[in-house]
Amino acid sequence: MPSEFDLIKNYFTRPAKRTVLSVGDDAALIRVAADHELAVSTDMLLAERHFFAEDDPESLGHKTLAVNLSDLAAMGATPRWVLLSLALPEVNEQWLARFATGFYTLAEQHGVSLIGGDTTRGPMAFSVTIMGEVARGQALRRAGAKVGDEIWVSGTLGDAALALAYLQRRIQITPHAAAAVLPRLHRPTPRIRLGQALLGIAHSAIDISDGLLADLGHVLQASNVGAEIRLDALPLSETLRAYWQEDVARHAALTGGDDYELCFTAKAAQHAAILKIGKRLKLPLACIGRITRETGLIVRDTDNQVLNFEGTGFDHFA
Amino acid sequence: MPSEFDLIKNYFTRPAKRTVLSVGDDAALIRVAADHELAVSTDMLLAERHFFAEDDPESLGHKTLAVNLSDLAAMGATPRWVLLSLALPEVNEQWLARFATGFYTLAEQHGVSLIGGDTTRGPMAFSVTIMGEVARGQALRRAGAKVGDEIWVSGTLGDAALALAYLQRRIQITPHAAAAVLPRLHRPTPRIRLGQALLGIAHSAIDISDGLLADLGHVLQASNVGAEIRLDALPLSETLRAYWQEDVARHAALTGGDDYELCFTAKAAQHAAILKIGKRLKLPLACIGRITRETGLIVRDTDNQVLNFEGTGFDHFA
Repeated sequence: MPSEFDLIKNYFTRPAKRTVLSVGDDAALIRVAADHELAVSTDMLLAERHFFAEDDPESLGHKTLAVNLSDLAAMGATPRWVLLSLALPEVNEQWLARFATGFYTLAEQHGVSLIGGDTTRGPMAFSVTIMGEVARGQALRRAGAKVGDEIWVSGTLGDAALALAYLQRRIQITPHAAAAVLPRLHRPTPRIRLGQALLGIAHSAIDISDGLLADLGHVLQASNVGAEIRLDALPLSETLRAYWQEDVARHAALTGGDDYELCFTAKAAQHAAILKIGKRLKLPLACIGRITRETGLIVRDTDNQVLNFEGTGFDHFA
Repeated sequence: MPSEFDLIKNYFTRPAKRTVLSVGDDAALIRVAADHELAVSTDMLLAERHFFAEDDPESLGHKTLAVNLSDLAAMGATPRWVLLSLALPEVNEQWLARFATGFYTLAEQHGVSLIGGDTTRGPMAFSVTIMGEVARGQALRRAGAKVGDEIWVSGTLGDAALALAYLQRRIQITPHAAAAVLPRLHRPTPRIRLGQALLGIAHSAIDISDGLLADLGHVLQASNVGAEIRLDALPLSETLRAYWQEDVARHAALTGGDDYELCFTAKAAQHAAILKIGKRLKLPLACIGRITRETGLIVRDTDNQVLNFEGTGFDHFA
């Protein structure tokens, strides 16, 4: 007789592509394409820390995979395989079916196969390992930024921070605005196609999960360079501008996490090529500053004054 | 300033072998050897379910990796890379240092490199993804058992069950006996070299984590065959025999989990070759039965009577 935790596994068994052996043995078996490297990343998401147990299960299924896909996007890798471990306090079939729907809908959009995992009873937690392929030596790394590079970000920044402020009742917004920003927090779009398009063009890349200042800081540290970014170049959504004064909105764009856009650097000669990529992908790409020889991260105001930022977490703010 | 969770990462950053890019980017990059497949498996371990928060941290570090290595052993794969995610309620540097010692000591014994992971604050939990290489098409699977195959197990069975009974104060044993069986529960030895030696010899393999009956049952189901095993052929340690009557000891060997020995099947013509492998590895290998055409798992007593087993979990027993 199958246990209730065997039942869980039934929700997560679908045919796997490009896989020698999938769910149901001691290990899965995969073959990495010739002349390619395997990019592999893992994330653990805990209830009350990364999400709330009451969150919509379909969104949770989406986000659990999306944040991992975002890591591969930042490498320029093509996602192929994923492992999912679930700890759940009880087996609720309706909840599971909806979580699986959110997870698989995104997985299938990106051609990703679930090839293994683990289920257990416990405080709600998800652990995902994502694997993708990238041509040998081509992956985008944090450590590649060069002095003189332009710094770019995709999409708009700070929307997830506005959604969080709304959920925490720190701000009131219209249903229309809520519908615009909540998906930024709950159903982020991993920038897979952008990462792939930047192979051979960008010198470095990272995904913005902890906030632009923090994540760009990782690139600078890994590359042993500095940066200057311009406040007025930060891409802000209409919704963000409608609800927050300019300084608050920009602070959110600099320090708000969970946007899952890409930040990347490339030589200035690639400027036009990068704008063309954005046009092709229908994804705005904004040049927000430059990589400098002098280490440290400087933010310049519209009148060229240097701003000082203490701390980089949005939690410390407002 | 590094956060306390950055400090954690410092405990888990050592040079990685056979790795293009290790800890510290959005993803790690690895190259799988030509003509090899990647075997990949993941496990999540939760406090109070798979271990106790008060357990010796060095043993926890060992076991967290060992149970994953055991999955690769069952495939005959050579372990290469591992990802480790830690959720911890607080940062205790002494605890971390000891956990890392247990983890790395075993990792280095097997030439395994830690190439990524995640750390977060929360109820204590570990999630490991292990990756290894195996020559194309050679991996041992659950689905390969053939009618007429002999069924083998490595080492002795039931010792971890005795250790658990001792820890739960269901039985009193001498310090000498405790020293013999506690490591079976807390520091299991993954049978990596045995799995590798069985490539091309065994038809199927699985590691015994849930108990022999349950795990052999997975092989039978995957292979669409049945089995007969002989009670008197079960390998029992001297310690087990000293504390439990024969029927209790055998029941523990059949249903006790956490032994992490291998169960495998091979044609009878390989009998002598398998005994030779056991001799070379200094690891007893016991032939305990046969694969049958008729599905189902039959256990025969010494007088050839068929025994009936309800349930397969040791928890239901005694």
